[in-house]
Amino acid sequence: MSSTLEFKIINKCHASRARAGEITTSHGKFATPVFMPVGTQGSVRAVSPEELVESGVRIILANTYHLYLRPGHRIIEKLGGLHRFMNWSGPILTDSGGFQVYSLSRLRTISEEGVTFQSHLDGSRHFIGPEEAINIQKSLGADIIMTFDECAPYPADYEYIVNSVKLTSLWARKCIESEIDANQALFGIVQGGIYPDLRERSAKELIELGFDGYALGGLSVGEDRATREKVIRETVEFLPEEKPVYLMGVGKPEDIIDGIRLGVDMFDCVMPTRNARNGTLFTSRGKLVIKNARYSDDDRPVDEKCDCYTCSRYSRAYLRHLFMAKELLSYRLNSIHNLYFYSHLMENIRYAILEDKFDDFCKEFFRSYSGPGSD
Amino acid sequence: MSSTLEFKIINKCHASRARAGEITTSHGKFATPVFMPVGTQGSVRAVSPEELVESGVRIILANTYHLYLRPGHRIIEKLGGLHRFMNWSGPILTDSGGFQVYSLSRLRTISEEGVTFQSHLDGSRHFIGPEEAINIQKSLGADIIMTFDECAPYPADYEYIVNSVKLTSLWARKCIESEIDANQALFGIVQGGIYPDLRERSAKELIELGFDGYALGGLSVGEDRATREKVIRETVEFLPEEKPVYLMGVGKPEDIIDGIRLGVDMFDCVMPTRNARNGTLFTSRGKLVIKNARYSDDDRPVDEKCDCYTCSRYSRAYLRHLFMAKELLSYRLNSIHNLYFYSHLMENIRYAILEDKFDDFCKEFFRSYSGPGSD
Repeated sequence: MSSTLEFKIINKCHASRARAGEITTSHGKFATPVFMPVGTQGSVRAVSPEELVESGVRIILANTYHLYLRPGHRIIEKLGGLHRFMNWSGPILTDSGGFQVYSLSRLRTISEEGVTFQSHLDGSRHFIGPEEAINIQKSLGADIIMTFDECAPYPADYEYIVNSVKLTSLWARKCIESEIDANQALFGIVQGGIYPDLRERSAKELIELGFDGYALGGLSVGEDRATREKVIRETVEFLPEEKPVYLMGVGKPEDIIDGIRLGVDMFDCVMPTRNARNGTLFTSRGKLVIKNARYSDDDRPVDEKCDCYTCSRYSRAYLRHLFMAKELLSYRLNSIHNLYFYSHLMENIRYAILEDKFDDFCKEFFRSYSGPGSD
Repeated sequence: MSSTLEFKIINKCHASRARAGEITTSHGKFATPVFMPVGTQGSVRAVSPEELVESGVRIILANTYHLYLRPGHRIIEKLGGLHRFMNWSGPILTDSGGFQVYSLSRLRTISEEGVTFQSHLDGSRHFIGPEEAINIQKSLGADIIMTFDECAPYPADYEYIVNSVKLTSLWARKCIESEIDANQALFGIVQGGIYPDLRERSAKELIELGFDGYALGGLSVGEDRATREKVIRETVEFLPEEKPVYLMGVGKPEDIIDGIRLGVDMFDCVMPTRNARNGTLFTSRGKLVIKNARYSDDDRPVDEKCDCYTCSRYSRAYLRHLFMAKELLSYRLNSIHNLYFYSHLMENIRYAILEDKFDDFCKEFFRSYSGPGSD
């Protein structure tokens, strides 16, 4: 296994599994817990790399499936890899393509070798298995890459998940046996649906292979909060404490806080950027829907407690106008605000853990942030 | 008449009517000849105010018709005017709304008082006459505002244009008699179609009223290059040399150079930003269509002679990928490049005029820039 990734735990919460740490990659360090914005096609939608940095973003995620189909990993490799292609010099994590193969592509057929599927773009036929997923990620050159897993539908019965775990472990072995670049770290993905014994089995089989970090897959696919909490709790207890834990596709601020409490270090989600483009803005007091007529002449910033680029310069009235007029600047200004909100949230959580006041932080956060419907 | 606008001619070309100067407004100075990007709805599409400044933009144009309909001039006034609303501290010029009333709205009825029309957004009925156009522009608070003119269709027969000129002069008088803000300058718009005697009549009637500057309206509406040149030439000769001349809605780099040669100081056009969003990029060697497959793995910047933000950081391959993937960053990066191209072109023209080498500049420019189809 590569030892390119270093994970250092700096402090642990006395009242939960929350921990604050630091991960060092080939393209620099970032503090944990960390939120990774999603740059699906080699661009975090509507924002520039400079704006990401100014918004506090230190690592981004890119989607292997999308970049494989367009522009193609070979082109990105030829142009010096994804960092250079998209002008992002910080750490990048690529997913394995597994999730998108299941959620976006058509006519999938799964075998022990991998998945044959049709592109959602043009219907062309493709095959990706564990070796292919690693090869593509090697071409892209991300700092953290992921094993190719079998993403079960939700809900799925026990028998389906037994097989899914089996395939995921088989593919994880093939991934780890593939040649990756010396400055890439490889994470395994734990599957197992909502079945504690299968989560345990999946975790143990992956740990035996030995990865640089462990991700929880198959969550944030429609299950309720209590179920998700239970699955995270029952999976994390089997994972080695000294390795980073990554909860894929999560999520809402409140779900991230739940995850951190349960021992998760890394998160990714399209929520801050997608919501921004839909005109939903995160604030310390909950969500704000910018198209609401009450903001039409509101001279205040989105969040009076926020220091982001957008809040320092623009009124709710202007942001509402841009959104109603479908101006491209709307999506950018909203995205910058939401990314800053997420980064700032993670930073505050981290400080709270470092001072062992995470419990107080959570109470205070939820008192102020009433979540959906607070607008 | 307000004396808030100062126009200083610094040098004149010996071989043409081209001149280099400087205009001082309530929100600062800009050098002429100048190109004004269009911020139709209070935002130059896809770019931020900081990016405009970095791209060399010193004055922008906003559309009265659009801002009147949405968000409404009263809201902008309440929020401190357009400069504050859109966070642009430099000079702004607003058109009078005349052109859009004719080109965008439905069911127009023109009377001596003004125009009744239906909004292109929701079909609501509105009336704008000369006093209304000035009042709206007063609320918006631009540094340079325009008289409300009658924009004739093209082509139009002599009788139609006789009446158009008559109405334009009548309305210009009403505009000049309206109360405007002490720090706003008012420009008159010369109409007259392609008829030299009517252009002369229109120019003389406006000059008698006395404006801070004179615009040429009713051009860039479908006429050929030779016709446009003839009309500009036959209008400019009647305008006072000490006032700025503004050619509305022009245009292509080659048309701007033609205009400057004929004595025009100010230009505006959606071309750099609209073309950017269509993937057409201006370069010193002509236009480049970024979606062309030949750029798919081209590591070079759009223009190897360009120092803009986009060319300093991104390859043609990445820009092509963003455009094909419809990423929002595509429109921004392309717009920044095209705006920089225009600003840089104007700067080079100005230097050439200051050194009285404008003729050489034109020859050199056209030798390199072969215009449409050079890609």
